[in-house]
Amino acid sequence: MKRYEEVAATIRQRMEHGLYRAGDRLPSIRELCGEFAVSISTVQTAYAGLEAERLIEARPKSGYYVLPRSAPPVLPGVTRPTQRPLDVSQWDHVLNLVGEPGAEHVISLGRGIPDVEAKTLKPLFQQLAALHRRGHAAGLKYDSLAGSPQLREQLARLASSSGCLLHPDDILITTGCQEALSIAIRTLTVPGDVVAVDSPSFYGSMQILKAHQLKAMEIPTDPQTGISQEALELALEQWPIKAIQITPTHNNPLGYTMPEARKRELVALAQRFDVAIIEDDIYGDLAYRAPRPRTLKSFDDDGRVLLCSSFSKTLIPSLRVGWIAPGRYRDQVMHMKYVSTGASATLPQLAVADFIGQGHYERHLRNVVRQYQRNLDVVLGWVQALFPLGTGVSYPQGGFLLWVEVKGLDSVRLNERMAASGIQIAPGSLFSASGKYRDCLRINYTQASSPMYDALVTVSREIALMQAEQAAEAV
Amino acid sequence: MKRYEEVAATIRQRMEHGLYRAGDRLPSIRELCGEFAVSISTVQTAYAGLEAERLIEARPKSGYYVLPRSAPPVLPGVTRPTQRPLDVSQWDHVLNLVGEPGAEHVISLGRGIPDVEAKTLKPLFQQLAALHRRGHAAGLKYDSLAGSPQLREQLARLASSSGCLLHPDDILITTGCQEALSIAIRTLTVPGDVVAVDSPSFYGSMQILKAHQLKAMEIPTDPQTGISQEALELALEQWPIKAIQITPTHNNPLGYTMPEARKRELVALAQRFDVAIIEDDIYGDLAYRAPRPRTLKSFDDDGRVLLCSSFSKTLIPSLRVGWIAPGRYRDQVMHMKYVSTGASATLPQLAVADFIGQGHYERHLRNVVRQYQRNLDVVLGWVQALFPLGTGVSYPQGGFLLWVEVKGLDSVRLNERMAASGIQIAPGSLFSASGKYRDCLRINYTQASSPMYDALVTVSREIALMQAEQAAEAV
Ligand SMILES: Cc1ncc(COP(=O)(O)O)c(C=O)c1O
Ligand SMILES: Cc1ncc(COP(=O)(O)O)c(C=O)c1O
Repeated sequence: MKRYEEVAATIRQRMEHGLYRAGDRLPSIRELCGEFAVSISTVQTAYAGLEAERLIEARPKSGYYVLPRSAPPVLPGVTRPTQRPLDVSQWDHVLNLVGEPGAEHVISLGRGIPDVEAKTLKPLFQQLAALHRRGHAAGLKYDSLAGSPQLREQLARLASSSGCLLHPDDILITTGCQEALSIAIRTLTVPGDVVAVDSPSFYGSMQILKAHQLKAMEIPTDPQTGISQEALELALEQWPIKAIQITPTHNNPLGYTMPEARKRELVALAQRFDVAIIEDDIYGDLAYRAPRPRTLKSFDDDGRVLLCSSFSKTLIPSLRVGWIAPGRYRDQVMHMKYVSTGASATLPQLAVADFIGQGHYERHLRNVVRQYQRNLDVVLGWVQALFPLGTGVSYPQGGFLLWVEVKGLDSVRLNERMAASGIQIAPGSLFSASGKYRDCLRINYTQASSPMYDALVTVSREIALMQAEQAAEAV
Repeated sequence: MKRYEEVAATIRQRMEHGLYRAGDRLPSIRELCGEFAVSISTVQTAYAGLEAERLIEARPKSGYYVLPRSAPPVLPGVTRPTQRPLDVSQWDHVLNLVGEPGAEHVISLGRGIPDVEAKTLKPLFQQLAALHRRGHAAGLKYDSLAGSPQLREQLARLASSSGCLLHPDDILITTGCQEALSIAIRTLTVPGDVVAVDSPSFYGSMQILKAHQLKAMEIPTDPQTGISQEALELALEQWPIKAIQITPTHNNPLGYTMPEARKRELVALAQRFDVAIIEDDIYGDLAYRAPRPRTLKSFDDDGRVLLCSSFSKTLIPSLRVGWIAPGRYRDQVMHMKYVSTGASATLPQLAVADFIGQGHYERHLRNVVRQYQRNLDVVLGWVQALFPLGTGVSYPQGGFLLWVEVKGLDSVRLNERMAASGIQIAPGSLFSASGKYRDCLRINYTQASSPMYDALVTVSREIALMQAEQAAEAV
């Protein structure tokens, strides 16, 4: 942490602990210079940062004052998706979001991309370079179909931190989490089958259902505790559901983590109805508080949970290194992996295995998690300050995605209208089979930079404009 | 080429042109030293090589003599697969071949792996290392879903050498050719559908059919001209075939290239019956004679051919960079690509694009193709010399795979019996839905080294032993 960040952090803490309250005048710059033994410019930078976060304000000729703490975010209520199995639509909008990487000048608030410029990634790049430079035969041919043993060993070791006892042979390496999910779905279903999903749900897994002519049974989901067990049970009684596909930890897009008791209940429910669970744990390691939450898999005693994950959110997406722990479905999943992409690329696996083995992974996680958590508070503050009154906001316990609900908003149109200004959001409708949640949007807060603030200002102005136009039309 | 290789090549040529005939005494070592202005050891090495190839023999105190040319290889006849759609079996045997990379000491005659130690690959490794070292943001996030424009441009340029006019947007990058094939099949079929295949056929694409509950209609195939048009037409009349899946150029495993006229006819036939063609061109660039053969795609005027390929056989498998030119199915294929693995890894694509753009790809092809062609003659000679009389052998016009038919052989048992000696072959039965071609095996001739020769000696001894045991049992 830089000096000015330390100063800001201390001030922030004192405000949180009530030492400085709303309306209080803060110590002068000179006083803080003395207290922290730092330069004037260091304190100025610290205060400027807190000002940008809307925590304090400068009053001309008077000094810095603590701003009133905004009310806790209004969380959107339990979702109310359609209560029958649906075909999945929305591909055109998803393609719009994921089709192109986004030009230099586009500010993508919408995509699920971590901070790929974090300093703590450096050893990974060095290792990747070293492995590729050598170009010796090992690592150039087809890898073991299950994936490099070195990486599977490290993954088995890491799994214990989520309460999971896995042997390296319980894990198969995939081409990203997307392949893990796709293989899981294809292993468990045939066209026409129904899959229960949390709702809203990651568009990538919803589109798998579409591609294979499956139906999505969207289950009402509480933005704090996750999928409704009661609604899921009703659905399981009523429909021939083959699998439950769910992201129970640091959910995308809602941010919640299911409490442990509910995770345990969910596994029991799946046992009772004898259905498989596809658990997407891709954000699981990005917990703001240690230890990281347990996986559903950790409660699975009869091998019905297929745990899917990757390093796309914790390291970098373009590695395309993911994995699946398929439980009792191992043989079918292995076959499906072979026919889907053959063995995965070897060198990225070896590089990641080394990165983990040498302790760089845990160091990197600590680094980015601290950053994301800090940014969450900043960006939350911005959204509350800028967006219309009554805007609902999620409060993630990990990851880097914020869910925002603006009553009456058409987020698809909002996105279209902002295309010209080079700002891209993820409209909420992507996360529903039938395009619900159109009044929501998902925001990436890996950065809490001033371009990010400016982008949110632009978004909020556009929203205000749209609301004004609507009001005018209504008259 | 090294000096001694040049000398050997010249002698070989003179024998081919009839300047030195069977039984002739060859020039003495001293004479050749004079003619080529090289050292004694150079000529000795050249003669030793030709001796290893069984082209000449040394007679003590007399000199080197040309050995009788063995009869032209006896090609196996037109194949006779079962004439109805079948479920695909053989996964356990395929897994046995592809599950593990093979320990250091295992000599894999069976796997389809190119020479990954070729010197001309070096610029690729350098470029890969350079790109990974930098670790800057471009190339770390999700790539364009269609793949890097740079690579698609190079691929479109290369396609013209196979008679194909492609725009970069006609091409989507995949995770190897396997993903291209898998996406093509899944785009075109639903469970229960029938797919026509050449027979024998690459086990990887056959297993795709198995994984998605499709049936394989195996079509009789001529080892010199490819799939029987007549048999295919009959099958198309009789069965609800959704797609024809075929490897028409440097076929795996048979080695043939369909003549241009037959390729044109095949596309016309597909048009007449309105079915799609999945063309696997993975060995297409490895032609022994320039220009490389045309693709089916080059005769396709209504977008029904889905051309699939990769750099796994021309560069290295573990890059996992492949592509598909899906014609009229582009939108569905794009969707299927997204749900299968998302965007592919960026940096390998950029490295390959540079490698091609800077002329390294064509240089590398010239290098390895020369090597494979030379090895073909050597290994063919070995097989003819070592294997039982009447053994049928293919005569590939490109690639590096030989198909060998030994009447009465059980190649699966052969493989099992040789496991202890660390030698692995590809049993012919892998290439059939129902395990036909058990009396065949596929041999990789990227190397014509003395360990390779020794391995073939071991294989042939084991075959002789098995035949002797059989004969004893029959008595
Ligand atoms: C919840 C979730 N699952 C899976 C994925 C896909 O991950 P990968 O890039 O590793 O294929 C994403 C990426 O956006 C995601 O958010
Ligand atoms: C004919 C054929 N098609 C496809 C493949 C798979 O290629 P890739 O490794 O690029 O997925 C192979 C590899 O063995 C092959 O021989």
